[in-house]
Amino acid sequence: MPIDPRHPREIRADIRSGKFAGITAGLGPGFVQANMAVLPRDDAYDFLLFCQRNPRPCPLIEVTDVGSVEPVGAAAGADLRTDLPRYRIYKDGVLADEVTDVKAFWRDDLVGFLLGCSFTFEWALMDAGIPLRHVERGCNVSMWKTSIDCRPAGRFHGPMVVSMRPIPNEMVAKAVTASARFPGAHGAPIHVGDPAAIGVKDVTKPDWGDAVEIKRGEVPVFWACGVTPQAVALASKPAFMITHSPGHMFITDIPNSSLAAF
Amino acid sequence: MPIDPRHPREIRADIRSGKFAGITAGLGPGFVQANMAVLPRDDAYDFLLFCQRNPRPCPLIEVTDVGSVEPVGAAAGADLRTDLPRYRIYKDGVLADEVTDVKAFWRDDLVGFLLGCSFTFEWALMDAGIPLRHVERGCNVSMWKTSIDCRPAGRFHGPMVVSMRPIPNEMVAKAVTASARFPGAHGAPIHVGDPAAIGVKDVTKPDWGDAVEIKRGEVPVFWACGVTPQAVALASKPAFMITHSPGHMFITDIPNSSLAAF
Repeated sequence: MPIDPRHPREIRADIRSGKFAGITAGLGPGFVQANMAVLPRDDAYDFLLFCQRNPRPCPLIEVTDVGSVEPVGAAAGADLRTDLPRYRIYKDGVLADEVTDVKAFWRDDLVGFLLGCSFTFEWALMDAGIPLRHVERGCNVSMWKTSIDCRPAGRFHGPMVVSMRPIPNEMVAKAVTASARFPGAHGAPIHVGDPAAIGVKDVTKPDWGDAVEIKRGEVPVFWACGVTPQAVALASKPAFMITHSPGHMFITDIPNSSLAAF
Repeated sequence: MPIDPRHPREIRADIRSGKFAGITAGLGPGFVQANMAVLPRDDAYDFLLFCQRNPRPCPLIEVTDVGSVEPVGAAAGADLRTDLPRYRIYKDGVLADEVTDVKAFWRDDLVGFLLGCSFTFEWALMDAGIPLRHVERGCNVSMWKTSIDCRPAGRFHGPMVVSMRPIPNEMVAKAVTASARFPGAHGAPIHVGDPAAIGVKDVTKPDWGDAVEIKRGEVPVFWACGVTPQAVALASKPAFMITHSPGHMFITDIPNSSLAAF
């Protein structure tokens, strides 16, 4: 994975000018990257309430003022229309377009939601000396829809999506405490050990991402996943929605460490 | 302080039937008590966003569905119209009535917000062996408006209100860590040591509550206070708002310990 150690401001400038349009893994290491969902004000109350009621899968980092393109709390001066490498446009819940700039799609009634992402707690896990197989293999983390229902809010309802990482037995406790410090990035695991207990029928066949081996002496550990809010929002078929493209996150100016609860 | 060790369900039943209408300190020890603000749906988005942006003074425990009187997450089966001992009714930001039941005032467009209160972290402080002077004296905690502006959201904006407790020097670190475990009840202090630095001009003259002595070897420690959201909401003069009366809180079924972040 190539590392770009520049400050997020400089990386976002390259993205804004069109110099860079790739995935953001390895860019601005040490800074929080965020999932993005943009919805009209009419849907924003239900979505905000859904996030408030389901903070593990939907940890809010920032909600913009109606019509504003600047996430002042997460990255002053940034522009949500241009500073992500790639966007998806959904109409009536169906993918309508994939673009590198959403200026032409922006409206005065839009609200931008930035949600914490697993990069932050994966950084905390690796910092604690815990190996992550999907990172070592250079593939995507395994993800499943579960039998755990999110608490509904207005038009939004649906199951929690989780990601799974095989953790050596002797490191499970450390993986829990290291990730629990970051509630703004999904926090502690939501389940340890029994895939069937949360409705994961076959741990070798993920619903999204790539399968990874679970070796002898390892336990499957499941964390709430940022795919949840997008999946839930799209399932309700909102008339209009913008999201980041998978892997093409918004890079904030917030240091990972400042997201630590403790 | 008289202690009523029954489960909150039983205490709420007495409140609902009119048997009890007093302050809730000492009732249902070990369970989370909550500040309440009820606003029409038209104001609810801005208020929800204000709480999301200012989690230290406004830690959300529960937001009800529009028109629903039942805080299903905090106390299934409870009724927000009858289960608090005393309520205040505000019209255009002005106190219009004080009642023990708001059935006559309830409307289909109302949203109930329950917010964490200092009782939870005071329990954690006392559990950690830290003496609290206002509890020993049986008086109210000292509170001030500060020079710290909350991050505004729509029509809601204003300064943070804080409460102050004198803490012996050698216990300040313990007071910080003990309260930091409870972000759902204001969390760690927002300031330690210099009242003037946060706009508190005279630490012997609180804006609300009672003054307490700061002895030699003690430091004034300031926590964000649940008076903030009510003060901010009322300053915007909403057409209609219901709150609990000071000290007459909603007693939830949530154990204090389950609010611990870590």
